[in-house]
Amino acid sequence: MATAGKVIKCKAAVAWEAAKPLKIEQVEVAPPQAMEVRVKILFTSLCHTDVYFWEAKGQTPMFPRIFGHEAGGIVESVGEGVTEVAPGDHVLPVFTGECKECPHCKSAESNMCDLLRINTDRGVMIGDGKSRFSIDGKPIYHFVGTSTFSEYTVMHVGCVAKINPEAPLDKVCVLSCGISTGLGASINVAKPPKGSTVAIFGLGAVGLAAAEGARIAGASRIIGVDLNASRFEEARKFGCTEFVNPKDHSKPVQEVLADMTNGGVDRSVECTGNVNAMIQAFECVHDGWGVAVLVGVPHKDAEFKTHPMNFLNERTLKGTFFGNFKPRTDLPNVVEMYMKKELEVEKFLTHSVPFSEINKAFDLMAKGEGIRCIIRMEN
Amino acid sequence: MATAGKVIKCKAAVAWEAAKPLKIEQVEVAPPQAMEVRVKILFTSLCHTDVYFWEAKGQTPMFPRIFGHEAGGIVESVGEGVTEVAPGDHVLPVFTGECKECPHCKSAESNMCDLLRINTDRGVMIGDGKSRFSIDGKPIYHFVGTSTFSEYTVMHVGCVAKINPEAPLDKVCVLSCGISTGLGASINVAKPPKGSTVAIFGLGAVGLAAAEGARIAGASRIIGVDLNASRFEEARKFGCTEFVNPKDHSKPVQEVLADMTNGGVDRSVECTGNVNAMIQAFECVHDGWGVAVLVGVPHKDAEFKTHPMNFLNERTLKGTFFGNFKPRTDLPNVVEMYMKKELEVEKFLTHSVPFSEINKAFDLMAKGEGIRCIIRMEN
Repeated sequence: MATAGKVIKCKAAVAWEAAKPLKIEQVEVAPPQAMEVRVKILFTSLCHTDVYFWEAKGQTPMFPRIFGHEAGGIVESVGEGVTEVAPGDHVLPVFTGECKECPHCKSAESNMCDLLRINTDRGVMIGDGKSRFSIDGKPIYHFVGTSTFSEYTVMHVGCVAKINPEAPLDKVCVLSCGISTGLGASINVAKPPKGSTVAIFGLGAVGLAAAEGARIAGASRIIGVDLNASRFEEARKFGCTEFVNPKDHSKPVQEVLADMTNGGVDRSVECTGNVNAMIQAFECVHDGWGVAVLVGVPHKDAEFKTHPMNFLNERTLKGTFFGNFKPRTDLPNVVEMYMKKELEVEKFLTHSVPFSEINKAFDLMAKGEGIRCIIRMEN
Repeated sequence: MATAGKVIKCKAAVAWEAAKPLKIEQVEVAPPQAMEVRVKILFTSLCHTDVYFWEAKGQTPMFPRIFGHEAGGIVESVGEGVTEVAPGDHVLPVFTGECKECPHCKSAESNMCDLLRINTDRGVMIGDGKSRFSIDGKPIYHFVGTSTFSEYTVMHVGCVAKINPEAPLDKVCVLSCGISTGLGASINVAKPPKGSTVAIFGLGAVGLAAAEGARIAGASRIIGVDLNASRFEEARKFGCTEFVNPKDHSKPVQEVLADMTNGGVDRSVECTGNVNAMIQAFECVHDGWGVAVLVGVPHKDAEFKTHPMNFLNERTLKGTFFGNFKPRTDLPNVVEMYMKKELEVEKFLTHSVPFSEINKAFDLMAKGEGIRCIIRMEN
């Protein structure tokens, strides 16, 4: 390509300071170095994690920064040593990577790559500790190795999943984070047997994807638990068959669920990150065979507490990260699930804006409206 | 048989009050009622649970009572409706049962039978709420449905495992409780992959059986953790390759184990019942794939506490009851493991006394000497 090896000037949405609207700026994007890939982003979407670090309430502020990590694009050029992808390949950027060499990548069970595991505190490339973005020679920080709120971005090749080029990027772009996280929590970790009962705590995008996963796995009862009853109607589209609003009951939700299910649900998936919901999600599973899966990220000072007899009575508690999907190995198969119409992605896509109106996506999320807003880079 | 349908007079070791030596008495054993079996006990052994309820420090005292639940014997006669066993069959009594009809028995994953699950507060038969033991017409309470410290005892057929008649009852009698509990915790629940590293917390009979299970499963490093270093030499016979005494270290044992194993063990099995050991056993497993299994029974006021990120980082915590073995379905196969010399039972059998000296077995356990003491009913 004509641009290979050269600096590309393009538009990016830069966060100059915490919680202030992003500004569309012209940035310079350096060529990919060894084991790196430069990608033309076509569609991106906004996930809570972007907002969380943009607000920087609990984190070390790191600005100016280019956020964005749910996206789809096409490889523009590759750096030295890159053999798995080539210019023109369709890819999904992923906020966590897969080096294929470390003990985690070599384990069939883990996706927590030692080299490329998510690091929200790193604003530079791991190869040389530098940024590939700049404005007038001043570096702009990266975010989780993806920074997809830019027409072009540079990523480590281990954070790039090559997918079926026939998959529509304006749809499958949302599979690179939250939707796969919830889906995988159900199909890879909770693994509800056919005909089983599953409780989903939290009916945001991740929880709805967990419900979708339970539906795909063949669960016959999917009970949505949320403090916001307005989410219940939408959740029916994702397989939820029943709803519990803990506010409607005087007794603990564990007991409400046990009463509804003859002793407890077969599986539960916790997608809120609230530690009390985690405890409820664990204690509501049936003794003898119940499995609870934690997905939501807890507060740093949270403490999980329960009576150990709840474990001794043959309950299992596990956590998952990115739905236990290995980014490069497994994400292409999630795209194939969509292509085969097993996984319904469209129902997650409630809004769409051009790149120039990216701040509208932040407004929608702040208001809790919709599930995913697609940001179109080329109008 | 000549005795079928009649009351049998025989010897039993009766606990008349808490923590006082048992007395060998002549008792009357009523014939088995519907779904019951009367068994001639040939060998029994002493387990901590007998001692725990005999001491009755934390429990409602229930005396006079006939303790005993690890044993082997031969069916003398059967009550109405019993078709699975017949007089002459060799059996192991089990403190928990398998009705084969309830949701737990029908689940492939659970062994916590709704009808016959262990109930330490029940001192009578479930069929009619009465005892089958008496002295001068005064009832003597049963213990966990087995009461094997008697030459004859009556059990529900769901608490009787029919085994290979060629198996030596003086050896396999110990498989009806603690040894199977530890063995199953490893082979059925922790399932250590070949070549993996396993930590065993607590090197009593159950912990040694868990080590034996890890050895059978092909673990290459088995790290015994105990506060009593005198147990380490014995534990080598059960596959332990290394030892950690938390008293020898200033840092938490989780960190000691992580340092020894490049980040954590692959599996851990907790056999002490101490809640701090449970937390350590969970936190010492490797992120990404580690599985911790709780076996030891906690104090009623215990609270398990940990940071939920320890789960989110893809660790699993599960508890087990009787090593997840279904008593009637699976125990005959454990006996076969011994017959095929896969499972080495002899090394658990450190002492033996005649029935008349049963209190010596209590003394040995009080002193922490040996692992299992076989009590021979016929001298």
